[in-house]
Amino acid sequence: MRTLHHLWLSAASRKVRIVLGEKKVAFRLEAEKTWERRPEFLALNPAGDVPVLIEPEGQALADQGAICEYLEEVFPEPSLIGNEPKERAEVRRLCAWFDQKFEAEVTRFLVTEKLMKRFLGLGEPDSRAIRVGLQNLTSHMAYLSWLTERHHWLAGGVFSLADIAAAAQISCIDYVGDIDWEQYPHVKDWYAKMKSRPSFRPLLGDHIPGAPPPKHYADLDF
Amino acid sequence: MRTLHHLWLSAASRKVRIVLGEKKVAFRLEAEKTWERRPEFLALNPAGDVPVLIEPEGQALADQGAICEYLEEVFPEPSLIGNEPKERAEVRRLCAWFDQKFEAEVTRFLVTEKLMKRFLGLGEPDSRAIRVGLQNLTSHMAYLSWLTERHHWLAGGVFSLADIAAAAQISCIDYVGDIDWEQYPHVKDWYAKMKSRPSFRPLLGDHIPGAPPPKHYADLDF
Repeated sequence: MRTLHHLWLSAASRKVRIVLGEKKVAFRLEAEKTWERRPEFLALNPAGDVPVLIEPEGQALADQGAICEYLEEVFPEPSLIGNEPKERAEVRRLCAWFDQKFEAEVTRFLVTEKLMKRFLGLGEPDSRAIRVGLQNLTSHMAYLSWLTERHHWLAGGVFSLADIAAAAQISCIDYVGDIDWEQYPHVKDWYAKMKSRPSFRPLLGDHIPGAPPPKHYADLDF
Repeated sequence: MRTLHHLWLSAASRKVRIVLGEKKVAFRLEAEKTWERRPEFLALNPAGDVPVLIEPEGQALADQGAICEYLEEVFPEPSLIGNEPKERAEVRRLCAWFDQKFEAEVTRFLVTEKLMKRFLGLGEPDSRAIRVGLQNLTSHMAYLSWLTERHHWLAGGVFSLADIAAAAQISCIDYVGDIDWEQYPHVKDWYAKMKSRPSFRPLLGDHIPGAPPPKHYADLDF
């Protein structure tokens, strides 16, 4: 059995959880308090972050992007990156957009300020950081609207890792209650499809003690 | 002929230039002033950053990671990511380390403060930001020392994209003169091998008007 070291509101960890679910690979979750910087965990991943996937024979794989590419190579069905090189380049471009740009411009601000700071006793949320995160969220939701108006899935007609990367981020932001879904009907339709996938359901059951999600978070009809 | 939209001290652009060189793919360079946010360029890459590779038939590919994976798929020889999935996961983990972690913790601070601010007329360098960048550089050079003491190349016995990702970052920092090479003999040996590769030579000829590199920058024997 594989083990995934993760954090509940780490979008990178959520992305790998969904990929494992899509590929029907069994795994157990192990929450890692990355801020404690345990030497045993740093030995698995010197970057000190989650996710880290432990393979059955014990090898540790780190970095969400490297893990997803690895899973695609070892479990090619169903394909999540596509077949043609240009199609694959577009899936990977969108993954980088959500994994890196959305994470840095939105999730890091909102999840850190609204949840992690309180959780770690680091003081009050910084309202300026929250304002920046919310402002950036508006641009990103506009881009997601543009994409979902044009195609059934983000990279085109086929479900892919790009949808998983985006939904992993969106699910963290939706947990802290920051998305006004009525403003984004196409994104809402897309996210409703994501929520109804069996691979996504476990994320909707996530529940951080002392910081419950809004009621609509787990609703398939939101 | 392909066109690569780039910036001289964008490590991501340098990485793609080296990959194109290793795979002996002809291309012309086009410098893009990304800060001007030209609508024509944003139409090629809504993220607005470089590198962007224009394929011969005109399609634009964006995001350095997606471009490198694409080039590996379309020009598989020489292989830069390796053959076995676990080996490939290690190459990609190290790429993420340098592309993202080193970039965010070191290059963004030092290159932005020392060159881009002056170049764009954004005022004096922020000495605190430079101090943070230099401090982070020390940790990263220690990690590079650890890697280069153990193996011939960063991911093991074989030259890979990990070496390219790291050397692309290091070359930007070396351009601004911040590496005390005498402190890091193993990294120096590794970087000397990188500098002598034909794919790397064009980068050593880069010369930003008004901000020349230190003399040792282009020396193969530094």
